[in-house]
Amino acid sequence: MKPIKVGLLGIGTVGSGTFKVLQRNQGEITRRAGRGIEIAMVADLNTARARQLVGNAATVTDNGRDVVTNPEIDVVVELIGGTGIAKELVLEAIANGKHVVTANKHLLAKYGNEIFAAAHAKGVSVAFEAAVAGGIPVIKALREGLTANRIEWIAGIINGTTNFILSEMRSKGLAFDTVLKQAQELGYAEADPTFDIEGIDAAHKITLMSAIAFGIPVQFEKAHVEGITKLTPADIEYAEELGYRIKLLGISRRTGDGIELRVHPTLVPAKHLIANVEGVMNSVLVKGDAVGQTLYYGAGAGSEPTASAVIADLVDITRTLTADPHNRVPHLAFQQGSLADTPILPLGKVVSSYYLRIRVANQTGVLADITRIMADQDISIDALLQKEPAEGEHQAEVIVLTHQTAEANVDAAIAKIEALPTVVGSVVRIRQEDLS
Amino acid sequence: MKPIKVGLLGIGTVGSGTFKVLQRNQGEITRRAGRGIEIAMVADLNTARARQLVGNAATVTDNGRDVVTNPEIDVVVELIGGTGIAKELVLEAIANGKHVVTANKHLLAKYGNEIFAAAHAKGVSVAFEAAVAGGIPVIKALREGLTANRIEWIAGIINGTTNFILSEMRSKGLAFDTVLKQAQELGYAEADPTFDIEGIDAAHKITLMSAIAFGIPVQFEKAHVEGITKLTPADIEYAEELGYRIKLLGISRRTGDGIELRVHPTLVPAKHLIANVEGVMNSVLVKGDAVGQTLYYGAGAGSEPTASAVIADLVDITRTLTADPHNRVPHLAFQQGSLADTPILPLGKVVSSYYLRIRVANQTGVLADITRIMADQDISIDALLQKEPAEGEHQAEVIVLTHQTAEANVDAAIAKIEALPTVVGSVVRIRQEDLS
Repeated sequence: MKPIKVGLLGIGTVGSGTFKVLQRNQGEITRRAGRGIEIAMVADLNTARARQLVGNAATVTDNGRDVVTNPEIDVVVELIGGTGIAKELVLEAIANGKHVVTANKHLLAKYGNEIFAAAHAKGVSVAFEAAVAGGIPVIKALREGLTANRIEWIAGIINGTTNFILSEMRSKGLAFDTVLKQAQELGYAEADPTFDIEGIDAAHKITLMSAIAFGIPVQFEKAHVEGITKLTPADIEYAEELGYRIKLLGISRRTGDGIELRVHPTLVPAKHLIANVEGVMNSVLVKGDAVGQTLYYGAGAGSEPTASAVIADLVDITRTLTADPHNRVPHLAFQQGSLADTPILPLGKVVSSYYLRIRVANQTGVLADITRIMADQDISIDALLQKEPAEGEHQAEVIVLTHQTAEANVDAAIAKIEALPTVVGSVVRIRQEDLS
Repeated sequence: MKPIKVGLLGIGTVGSGTFKVLQRNQGEITRRAGRGIEIAMVADLNTARARQLVGNAATVTDNGRDVVTNPEIDVVVELIGGTGIAKELVLEAIANGKHVVTANKHLLAKYGNEIFAAAHAKGVSVAFEAAVAGGIPVIKALREGLTANRIEWIAGIINGTTNFILSEMRSKGLAFDTVLKQAQELGYAEADPTFDIEGIDAAHKITLMSAIAFGIPVQFEKAHVEGITKLTPADIEYAEELGYRIKLLGISRRTGDGIELRVHPTLVPAKHLIANVEGVMNSVLVKGDAVGQTLYYGAGAGSEPTASAVIADLVDITRTLTADPHNRVPHLAFQQGSLADTPILPLGKVVSSYYLRIRVANQTGVLADITRIMADQDISIDALLQKEPAEGEHQAEVIVLTHQTAEANVDAAIAKIEALPTVVGSVVRIRQEDLS
């Protein structure tokens, strides 16, 4: 049978990994897919570099439109990133009846509903395993492996850069800025690290997983997003004393009132498997009503791990190429037209436990004031640490771990605590999840 | 669209879980599958119990042939177990053009080649996610999620009973027999626990994963199988001192000479994620050349976790029901007719590291004798512990951790060590894997 012809938009890190792995493993991949998979055309602004990478194996162009309009091309792999030209080319590829594989979480988290609807109308697939957690086949697990389940929640370490930074801060007691610089030197963080360290990249990914898990449209604009830039080594150490580690988690949970969708630093029990996922590795924990907890772990980024996911999607498309489009796995796991309109919960209604760090003047009575405020807000206390001032300092620290309560209660308590004359500066708040 | 009609062979633990989950989550499952999935007929020898479970929802019979010959039934779910009547009914269902879903690892590990060939000839699917690691979608990950990769090795905790026993032995310092009794009382071990504790169940599962990973026929008869019955709390403790935990692993690895296929107690680095999988939980670690290591974790058994896998297979079949059979995912991941004839390696050629525990008379010179024998066999030593005799005893213990060497070298060394007049009884040998 004639090989599937693939057009590549962008041949940077992931694109060149995809090209290399397809070449290296073409024998095994063909034995699996039943047909060869061939990159026939590559579009990249740097045509010289592209030509060097692909040699005579593929045509090189500097214009993506050459790829998406080429009638020889069956599948377009979009690896440009961002929401500009990538969006135009993906929509044009779909309009021309081509299947699309993309690693672009930003694009899908923002414009997924529009893109999936266009693909559905045209009867083509838009596959995006590579957009979430790199090489870990977690989109497949959620969309196909756990279809029996009413998913209760998902919690994932889905950004390797921030997990590397947190791992280093904890194991070496270093400050955020110091480790960020190291991460940049090691190539684990970009020159402009905003998307990673502010939690935006993780929010793109949890948005996509949330849609698949709960059968709701993609709703990135409703996600609560908090990064790790304000975390201090002290918080990490105190959390450790209390039996927890701090991880940047993407969390989405189904509740009676709606769906929680949030990214923030989170205290997780130190003994939980996910607390022990260190360095740049990713891991996603899924709780289903039938299966219980399952966990998926692996490399969340990098050239060949991400290529592994891109190629898995290419093989899936190859295997179902002649299948009736209505019997393909739906983009968002649930059939188009049967998505739910369950609302995303506002953060104030989210129920969680909380770690609060409060800097206080070292005076008697402060603790009584704080605990009274919390009792008034119906917040009960799970654990409390008092850290005496270091020599020559006058301010102590109080760390409170609360039981579960609504975020709005904690907001109110924090406002009152910060208004106490004995309290200095802002209260540090980190959410805590038992993941049970 | 008319719902898919399912016939259930056996409605015990997993069967009743499947029925319950399909009923409870039928709304979500239909939204995912695009059609209803309905258990229309149930065969079980205990018809009274079966009727009580299914009420008026399904016809009940005591004869499995009624199910596999019923023209109304689209898919047969085989949950009888064993290789007797289950084999006959599966083959008859296939001959009648029905798709089959089964949790029966024993059947597939022994007769998989015959069954898959019959299904291929007839153009039907035999799906078996539930046969390996319960609710963890690891068959899907291997067969569809990691298709880009040349798989290098798989190592899995794929038997919950033995992992529970080992976890208890370690955390409480108890003997094997004591914990086995507790496991039986808790329902984690069967009255006849042979298949679990002797490693046979794990061997069935690693045999199936090995076929899928490497594109080879199912070859259970060539697996090396060792259980956990001879492990002592002392070995677990010494392993701990050396920085390792002992897990019963199913291991399959591709080497230049052939494929390793083995189940045995294994020392794994205590810091590795898989070493921290405790109790009845399962976990499978897969190393691919592109993706690196990925890990899958969850419940490996139980009513609803296993039902979760059965139903995922039913949804997959529903989604592809009109698809051209040649474009379906192949049973063993690689297209029928393109399986490889890579041999399974004999154990003597397997290269591993080893933990050896040697009981010796407390005399000078013993250690020199032992280390000389090992040097003569080209075995280099990674670590060595000497345990002095307890008061009133005259025998000490020597624990040796070796570097990598061929099993045949270790066989030879052990024979010579056991022949030393100063060595008492047999040498305990446990393999060690770095999983890196």
